[in-house]
Amino acid sequence: MFLSEPAVSNLTESGLIDRIARWLGPLNPPAPEGMGDDCAVYPPTADCQQIVTSDALVYGQHFDSSISARQAGIKLVNRNLSDIAAMGGTPERAILNLMCGPDLELAWLEAFFFGLRQAAAAVNLHIVGGDICRLNPGCFTSVLTIIGTVDKPLLRGTAQPGDAILVTGELGGSLAGKHAHFSPRLAEGRWLAQSGCCTALMDLTDGLAKDLPSLLAEDQTAKLLLDAVPLAADGSAAAAQSGRTPLEHAFCDGEDYELLFTLRAGESVPNFLSLWQQTFPGVRISHIGHISHDLTPGSAERLVDAANGQALPFSKGFEHFRGTS
Amino acid sequence: MFLSEPAVSNLTESGLIDRIARWLGPLNPPAPEGMGDDCAVYPPTADCQQIVTSDALVYGQHFDSSISARQAGIKLVNRNLSDIAAMGGTPERAILNLMCGPDLELAWLEAFFFGLRQAAAAVNLHIVGGDICRLNPGCFTSVLTIIGTVDKPLLRGTAQPGDAILVTGELGGSLAGKHAHFSPRLAEGRWLAQSGCCTALMDLTDGLAKDLPSLLAEDQTAKLLLDAVPLAADGSAAAAQSGRTPLEHAFCDGEDYELLFTLRAGESVPNFLSLWQQTFPGVRISHIGHISHDLTPGSAERLVDAANGQALPFSKGFEHFRGTS
Repeated sequence: MFLSEPAVSNLTESGLIDRIARWLGPLNPPAPEGMGDDCAVYPPTADCQQIVTSDALVYGQHFDSSISARQAGIKLVNRNLSDIAAMGGTPERAILNLMCGPDLELAWLEAFFFGLRQAAAAVNLHIVGGDICRLNPGCFTSVLTIIGTVDKPLLRGTAQPGDAILVTGELGGSLAGKHAHFSPRLAEGRWLAQSGCCTALMDLTDGLAKDLPSLLAEDQTAKLLLDAVPLAADGSAAAAQSGRTPLEHAFCDGEDYELLFTLRAGESVPNFLSLWQQTFPGVRISHIGHISHDLTPGSAERLVDAANGQALPFSKGFEHFRGTS
Repeated sequence: MFLSEPAVSNLTESGLIDRIARWLGPLNPPAPEGMGDDCAVYPPTADCQQIVTSDALVYGQHFDSSISARQAGIKLVNRNLSDIAAMGGTPERAILNLMCGPDLELAWLEAFFFGLRQAAAAVNLHIVGGDICRLNPGCFTSVLTIIGTVDKPLLRGTAQPGDAILVTGELGGSLAGKHAHFSPRLAEGRWLAQSGCCTALMDLTDGLAKDLPSLLAEDQTAKLLLDAVPLAADGSAAAAQSGRTPLEHAFCDGEDYELLFTLRAGESVPNFLSLWQQTFPGVRISHIGHISHDLTPGSAERLVDAANGQALPFSKGFEHFRGTS
């Protein structure tokens, strides 16, 4: 079962997801009902639609002993809430799977639940059930599945050429702390869904370089205003150590948990930015480019520098089975 | 975080669940909306109620290389379906979390998905999304969360004194093969929910000794007809090796995935058994006792031999963090 070739590590994450979709065949309905967006969407009922998302938190992968147990609990909730935000939805109920070695300290676990409870209570999210099971000593994995509602979900791949591309917050260097200390953009996501002027929405988890192409329809490219990409101070600090540029850190680091979205062509970007700042005065907003027809459909270069038309030199984000590129 | 005292291994599973309920406080609503039954139940809508359940499949815990990848995939689906069956529900949609080492063989994973698809297709269950992430080499964990519907869920703790206790199939010795080769009792669960004569229902996963007390209300005991407990041939074979009795194996082995339920007092048990056999001719049904008032409320002895009024000598089932008793 392990250690033979070919193994999972031979595939990128999207390559593995493509395989899984093929293996599941007709049991995997087209997005957004099936795989492919931030949440799966139930067929609409009279009132609203239901959305479901699930994310794991693995010791040694998503956190280590540099963050507290409480912060680990908060992170598990918030990374799932970020997916709910990315549909413009509202969280309702959650199921928790707890898997750990018999040697896990109870005091650590209690603090983990304290954090989980704090983050869930902040958005009135109920934890309605789940499962516990044993892992080998030294192991801890927790999975949270959140069910939420949305009036009209904002999807990926639904923008049109000419739509402006915007992003909240600042990007890069998340590992220095933000990965465990971010606020999921729930209010912002709901506001965007209700605004009527947002044409596509997702959250940034694997880095702009890897995530932005999945916002685009197949025949689209993103023309980017590189000077406008909001650089986090932690990304610039990381650049001073890594020898890479702050821009590359902003594109490739991952775990930004910011919202990436498009504004309908014809809407005034300055007016939108002004309205945003009145509504969310503490949340930076940046207009970083626009959607364009892909002149060479099927090209691997989906991200283009608007200044010179050249493909960006970095086109990969975080790869789960192969490390960062 | 690990290896200090007190650790998780100091608690029983139910002790750990009690702690978690306390830690979650008001975020954990009372059952069946919150923890405590086979599934969490959504508040009813006009049409029907929604139910949610989640179970993991961990390499080294729930399966090993003695079963095929395909069978592991089938087991993951079927152990979740058994919880849906235990509410009288119908499965609709599932979310899959896949966590594995980079060294997992793709051929193994493909066969795992083949089994998962086979079991899901058999009940028209759609796999609508999920998450993948990396574990250390040699590790494999998968979590499935199923959302289903039910007209009127059958719960635990809702039986009355005098109700008869019945169980499907045969108990004990599951590790010899049944744990990975069972059929979830979905049709039987739905039929019981629609029959109007079933007062409480659950599935047997940790053994009759541990599971039956959770079917009872706090002021109830179960008076058991020990000669009527259906002994699996594999449990008797295990007894020949272990030096324990086949009855103890039937009570304590776990992973039976049979339905345990109660029939309203006043209903004719012989008539019910006859109707069952006409409806499910291939599924053995056994009347193993009845619900009684607990004469000493709060007593730890919830299971009593009807023949002599003595508490059963074995009262524990499978303990996730401490091994079997």
